[in-house]
Amino acid sequence: MIDTLAALLDWLGVVVFATSGALVASRKQMDIVGFILLGTITGIGGGTIRDMLLGQLPVFWIVAPSYLIICAIVSCATFFLAHIPQSRHALLLRFDALGMALFAVTGAEKALVAGADPVVAVAMGVITATFGGVIRDVLGGERPAVLRHEVYATAALVGAAIFVLLSQMGVARETGLVCGFLIAATVRLGALQWNWSLPRYRPRPELLPKKRRP
Amino acid sequence: MIDTLAALLDWLGVVVFATSGALVASRKQMDIVGFILLGTITGIGGGTIRDMLLGQLPVFWIVAPSYLIICAIVSCATFFLAHIPQSRHALLLRFDALGMALFAVTGAEKALVAGADPVVAVAMGVITATFGGVIRDVLGGERPAVLRHEVYATAALVGAAIFVLLSQMGVARETGLVCGFLIAATVRLGALQWNWSLPRYRPRPELLPKKRRP
Amino acid sequence: MIDTLAALLDWLGVVVFATSGALVASRKQMDIVGFILLGTITGIGGGTIRDMLLGQLPVFWIVAPSYLIICAIVSCATFFLAHIPQSRHALLLRFDALGMALFAVTGAEKALVAGADPVVAVAMGVITATFGGVIRDVLGGERPAVLRHEVYATAALVGAAIFVLLSQMGVARETGLVCGFLIAATVRLGALQWNWSLPRYRPRPELLPKKRRP
Repeated sequence: MIDTLAALLDWLGVVVFATSGALVASRKQMDIVGFILLGTITGIGGGTIRDMLLGQLPVFWIVAPSYLIICAIVSCATFFLAHIPQSRHALLLRFDALGMALFAVTGAEKALVAGADPVVAVAMGVITATFGGVIRDVLGGERPAVLRHEVYATAALVGAAIFVLLSQMGVARETGLVCGFLIAATVRLGALQWNWSLPRYRPRPELLPKKRRP
Repeated sequence: MIDTLAALLDWLGVVVFATSGALVASRKQMDIVGFILLGTITGIGGGTIRDMLLGQLPVFWIVAPSYLIICAIVSCATFFLAHIPQSRHALLLRFDALGMALFAVTGAEKALVAGADPVVAVAMGVITATFGGVIRDVLGGERPAVLRHEVYATAALVGAAIFVLLSQMGVARETGLVCGFLIAATVRLGALQWNWSLPRYRPRPELLPKKRRP
Repeated sequence: MIDTLAALLDWLGVVVFATSGALVASRKQMDIVGFILLGTITGIGGGTIRDMLLGQLPVFWIVAPSYLIICAIVSCATFFLAHIPQSRHALLLRFDALGMALFAVTGAEKALVAGADPVVAVAMGVITATFGGVIRDVLGGERPAVLRHEVYATAALVGAAIFVLLSQMGVARETGLVCGFLIAATVRLGALQWNWSLPRYRPRPELLPKKRRP
């Protein structure tokens, strides 16, 4: 039951992230192979880095090639269906939020199962949640979402931390996964809806970099 | 014989990719250490990611340091000789095409030897073929070739798929390697020569992202 | 004694690189989670890639989570204290130079301990020294320092080579580490102070890329 839920969430995360990658491909007007490439890299990127860091090699999609096939199918479907939504960008951000929240908890969970320290598990949740998107944005030539002045990594951090905290307190894994996911997703979607943000670092004007001399 | 051919192709791929990396360094007017760095990263980048994903660690150039030495020599030679060709950019694209085609088949072959699924082997061919160039382009500040509206990853995908298909059908490995290479190279060089391209995703104008309101 | 010195240098390198990452976050006016993310990735990035290439998995900060905690603390401290220095950019470059020099020797040392070939050890020093900064610059949307027309990778290469050479000659490890560090740091800081540079590749004007036709 636990394994089924975790596996299901993992699959769902891969699908929504693959979609978000394919939607970036649609914004860049790429061809169908570009969709497959960017969708697949985004779908499996975060988990791939997680597995490489943990030393669980070969990485998950080499052991289970169906991940690749699903990513390719989802990316192809997006190629033909992305014209339906009114605004691809808004849709992309929502899909991205769900994928991020799912990977934050499943990434932390995989690290705990591998015997990692709680601090490492939280970091691994954040890495799994954000690095698929980071690779997507770097390859797509967009500014990484984690660097925009938005609550993004923060939501992943909060979700992963809640899940790890609940696990350490002995709460059932399913409960922890669902709680962590809901909180991460809520924080991110709320931030998108109401423009939440943390206070930024503010330099004094005379110290601003790249100041042009008059 | 099989091993000799595969090893030879692998070396040739490293050399032509190192050259393509060093030619990007020449376009950016870097110093000789920049040539060595960008040439070497491009030459060994795709294979390094392949080995890390497959869990064949330490990666190939740690086991066989001569790869590093060859990349450094090729990069230095390019520093002194890159002024000869009339157009570095056109040359770069042709070298890149050969390296891509070579790595598409040798990457897929390494994955098959490691016991990977045919689907994974094709993916590994595409990764080995494209990621050296992706890293080169990201570091060099150019838009990754795989995202340009050109037949690039498509050629790698076709070549790797042909090779894996022939291997699965029991065709001799040398034949498969040569066929896959020739097809990938032909598709890419043909695309460069006659501007072949796959149909792109076309949004309706009113749905274009980044639309400025009047 | 050897181990203590190497461990101390390693820690110091992580701290100064985390600071340099957090200072990029301050220039981009990110929030505190952005500081933690960019500071931590920069602090542990070079060593993480080194460990993945060598196959020493799980990577060092999974085994020793205190690295993550120190990076987070350093990044948070930078969030509150970065306004003190007059010029963040100049400070960033100096911190970066120290981190680079430290990682050049400790990276090469780790590779030697792992039994790598001297050539590989030098390469591993350069990789450990430069890749944290490369990831920082790519994620921060800046042009990688290794590609600017400055003596950067050159300093890492010289420092790592001196250390490996001294080690091969049988010189005590501490002496080698200190010599390599001082030379790498001196070369880089001198280059910053007096604008040292190696001769660049110079194309003939008629061969310049991206030439516009009149």
